[in-house]
Amino acid sequence: MRIGITGTGSYVPSKVVKNEEFEQHAFLNQDGSPFEQDNPVIIEKFKAITGISERRYAQGDQNASDLAFLAAQKALEDAALNKEQLDYIIVAHNFGDVSQGQSQSDMLPSLAARVKHLLRIKNPKCVAYDMLFGCPGWIEGVIQAQAFIKSGMAQHCMVIGAETLSRIVDPYDRDAMIYADGAGATIVSKQEGTGGILGHASASYAHDEAYFLYYGKSYAPKAGDTKYIKMYGRKIYEFAVSHVPGAMKECLDASGIPITDVKKILIHQANEKMDEAIVKRFYKSYGLAMPKDIMPMSIGTLGNSSVATIPTLYDRLGKGKLPGHQVEPGDVVIFASVGAGMNINAIVYRV
Amino acid sequence: MRIGITGTGSYVPSKVVKNEEFEQHAFLNQDGSPFEQDNPVIIEKFKAITGISERRYAQGDQNASDLAFLAAQKALEDAALNKEQLDYIIVAHNFGDVSQGQSQSDMLPSLAARVKHLLRIKNPKCVAYDMLFGCPGWIEGVIQAQAFIKSGMAQHCMVIGAETLSRIVDPYDRDAMIYADGAGATIVSKQEGTGGILGHASASYAHDEAYFLYYGKSYAPKAGDTKYIKMYGRKIYEFAVSHVPGAMKECLDASGIPITDVKKILIHQANEKMDEAIVKRFYKSYGLAMPKDIMPMSIGTLGNSSVATIPTLYDRLGKGKLPGHQVEPGDVVIFASVGAGMNINAIVYRV
Repeated sequence: MRIGITGTGSYVPSKVVKNEEFEQHAFLNQDGSPFEQDNPVIIEKFKAITGISERRYAQGDQNASDLAFLAAQKALEDAALNKEQLDYIIVAHNFGDVSQGQSQSDMLPSLAARVKHLLRIKNPKCVAYDMLFGCPGWIEGVIQAQAFIKSGMAQHCMVIGAETLSRIVDPYDRDAMIYADGAGATIVSKQEGTGGILGHASASYAHDEAYFLYYGKSYAPKAGDTKYIKMYGRKIYEFAVSHVPGAMKECLDASGIPITDVKKILIHQANEKMDEAIVKRFYKSYGLAMPKDIMPMSIGTLGNSSVATIPTLYDRLGKGKLPGHQVEPGDVVIFASVGAGMNINAIVYRV
Repeated sequence: MRIGITGTGSYVPSKVVKNEEFEQHAFLNQDGSPFEQDNPVIIEKFKAITGISERRYAQGDQNASDLAFLAAQKALEDAALNKEQLDYIIVAHNFGDVSQGQSQSDMLPSLAARVKHLLRIKNPKCVAYDMLFGCPGWIEGVIQAQAFIKSGMAQHCMVIGAETLSRIVDPYDRDAMIYADGAGATIVSKQEGTGGILGHASASYAHDEAYFLYYGKSYAPKAGDTKYIKMYGRKIYEFAVSHVPGAMKECLDASGIPITDVKKILIHQANEKMDEAIVKRFYKSYGLAMPKDIMPMSIGTLGNSSVATIPTLYDRLGKGKLPGHQVEPGDVVIFASVGAGMNINAIVYRV
């Protein structure tokens, strides 16, 4: 039995927001004090670290579940699967539907129920639920789909990552520039043959790290009680660089695949410098230098769309939309992510 | 192999809110018009249908994750399990942490990460995630735990249902009287022997039913954009009575257990009249009358705390806290739930 990805789809919102659009922002430190540098300097430094020069935002009338639906449609089409054959719809997100101009998360009903409704699926045996696991939510959803298939509970699972981070950023926070909107969807199916998911690893570090990413008030004094996505960037960087390579190595070694067989590493698009540091350290643990072109990146133009980055990247890779990068059947790729919780996971996958 | 519940715990908030406390409310219809009856009449009618005379609310400084933690501590103690041995912490909820006086849901980090943090668990291999599946979330979490154990990914999973519905009710809506706060936790473990989970059924009806429960504006005109839990009560009643008995029957028949062996039915405490109608119809489908004392109820004094009702009921049943009800090892019980999505599920379980 092979548990494989039989279809992919992604939705990249059409609204492009360039770095220059942040030049009028009044960026503040966590204590509410202004920065000494001017905005162009702040933005240039931001770009040098994160690699982001522009990001995508959903249109005003689109919510996370709408993006999820658009990606889901494409994945179903790509898999050439009758939608009524789906056993599960798993939607990974962390903030629900947040309508433009509002601050409340709406998850009643779940985003998975909304997607199922929009797909016009009738089959009640298709179980639709949402899963919250920080940015690694899509990978974790695939791991859950694998469990359902292995235990005989499912044959076809749709796993979606969708988020509209543009709706929950504090405009006074430099980190607002990191975040983006998007959705990626994947069909995970039981198939004949070998390959597919070869191994996985998951971890939750909550003892000291639970609040490295948190929902907190604006950095602007007197801005009120509304909460926004907040992070301790330096702590996250150090945490990720010291823990993610080990999780990837554990996962790869358990799968029995030699490092030299790895064709691509699709890593959560969190921050270009951090992602490079993780993958360099991963190769260093095998006494190797990071190969050229091992790590396709999309953060430069798509930003960090949380749970959506990896399925979107994989969809674009498979469809030849990442110049200079391609995978063929039989190639081994690693998916790896890190995010709020703090959670880490990885999958070794043979295409 | 047996997949069984090896420990239970629940947290019933200390704040008792009696029906009389709603007498000063200005109840309105969905269109904003006032009711013709006086509040005492409305409240009496409400009590006759739902069976609720009082409910519990969390203290002002407690959030859903705090209730979850308190229930989790008890479940770990009950199971006599070293907390570092947990492979999963699954927290079912639908609204995250909603602080008193605020309207935003806070799920960053996930409630499962918060619970793990509060439990001071160090083991990063204990994977903590949240799951949204309407009121049937706790049962669905147990079904997921079963999949992880069956597929060799876990031995011990903690499944928690926790909610603070008091924070998201519209005071102008009669239905506000239904909702309550609470948390129930369960350890699901791989054991030697037989029994435990004998069968399960899950379904999501989203084609026409997705928005029977939804997040909507206050019934008070000009109350603003803040959203509250809202429902089409009549539609839900008809849906539940026509679909839940079938799911229970399918699940019981697949497990091979004769109906006459069922000792107790623990049904989501949604509404007393609806719950009775469901169980009566379930027995009717076997040509039987509903046995006396088959269905322990807690809604009268605890209200409807969503995902928390069934694990709380099972905890109290097992610990002899439900006068007139008891279960012994070997007894068969059915767990069954229905809620937002619209989702339905059931488990046939041998104690």
